[in-house]
Amino acid sequence: MPEFERRIPEGDTRERLVCTSCGYICYENPTVVVAAVVADHGRVLLCRRAITPRRGFWTLPGGFLEQNETTEEGAQREVFEESGARIRIDGILAVFCISRISQVQVIFRARFDGPPAFAPGVETSDVRLFAADEIPWPQLAFPTNAWALKAWQAVGDGPLGPPATNPKDDPRGVHWSLDEVEPPGAGP
Amino acid sequence: MPEFERRIPEGDTRERLVCTSCGYICYENPTVVVAAVVADHGRVLLCRRAITPRRGFWTLPGGFLEQNETTEEGAQREVFEESGARIRIDGILAVFCISRISQVQVIFRARFDGPPAFAPGVETSDVRLFAADEIPWPQLAFPTNAWALKAWQAVGDGPLGPPATNPKDDPRGVHWSLDEVEPPGAGP
Repeated sequence: MPEFERRIPEGDTRERLVCTSCGYICYENPTVVVAAVVADHGRVLLCRRAITPRRGFWTLPGGFLEQNETTEEGAQREVFEESGARIRIDGILAVFCISRISQVQVIFRARFDGPPAFAPGVETSDVRLFAADEIPWPQLAFPTNAWALKAWQAVGDGPLGPPATNPKDDPRGVHWSLDEVEPPGAGP
Repeated sequence: MPEFERRIPEGDTRERLVCTSCGYICYENPTVVVAAVVADHGRVLLCRRAITPRRGFWTLPGGFLEQNETTEEGAQREVFEESGARIRIDGILAVFCISRISQVQVIFRARFDGPPAFAPGVETSDVRLFAADEIPWPQLAFPTNAWALKAWQAVGDGPLGPPATNPKDDPRGVHWSLDEVEPPGAGP
């Protein structure tokens, strides 16, 4: 087994994981999450999570960008995997930073590529279209779900402007839940 | 030494690096690059690279986002490290995908935080403000430098709109140089 130690490599300014045997530097990097607000005549597609964390809560379909994917391709793939929906990307709705967990989230506005068609993927227990007044706000899985849905409600089907970014009360993405109180665990 | 093999872990859909001894999955993820077009009265700050790749060519100050940083913080840090400039972020100018090297680039429009002040960092041999008609287009280091500078020229000091994205002739970011011909190597 190789041993890694945390130290500042020569020419660097911060600690990295360095192999004590061969000097290999294992960089740890933020991850990119891609997701989409898939809208259809004022309704939005949400998935109920079948997996932890936040099992049973509702989320926008999305997930980790893979190697050699564009963000658009990643969003299309993740939406299909989680919701069975084939989508067309409109543009970037929001870019959020969750520095607490070193995540950058790129969230697109999208529409169905054809008539609305969807079915739960393996990580999803239910998938539905919600009208604006039906969105299950208290049962959303993550703060960024709410931020993105509010950004979508502000722009609707109109022209996209500058992407929404973190709200003023959490500019660095350090709140772990919508109300900073609710513990992680089983959903409703 | 641990042995890693490429195989599809149970419940996954694509090959990962998996330790043959303990089953640890080493996910490989796209990286996030943050950079800024730092503008001052129609001029833009460019850095001449003192390091490979593309040593001697000019680039927007930027670099890899670090753990637990927001993209804004990362851009401010990288700009300072490479150009000595303290900046204020205006907003997102562009989001580019370089799928060839699994990179997502978030490029901000920014201004100096105070009177313009800058000096080359350790990875930079020169740093200058260029007027629009002085931009050394053939000596730019990377295609995304040109894409971002064109996006900046289109928007100027005006309100930011939707972020620029990859140009139509390279929607996935697979061209490795501006003209797809020029080999890597020493700069001008």
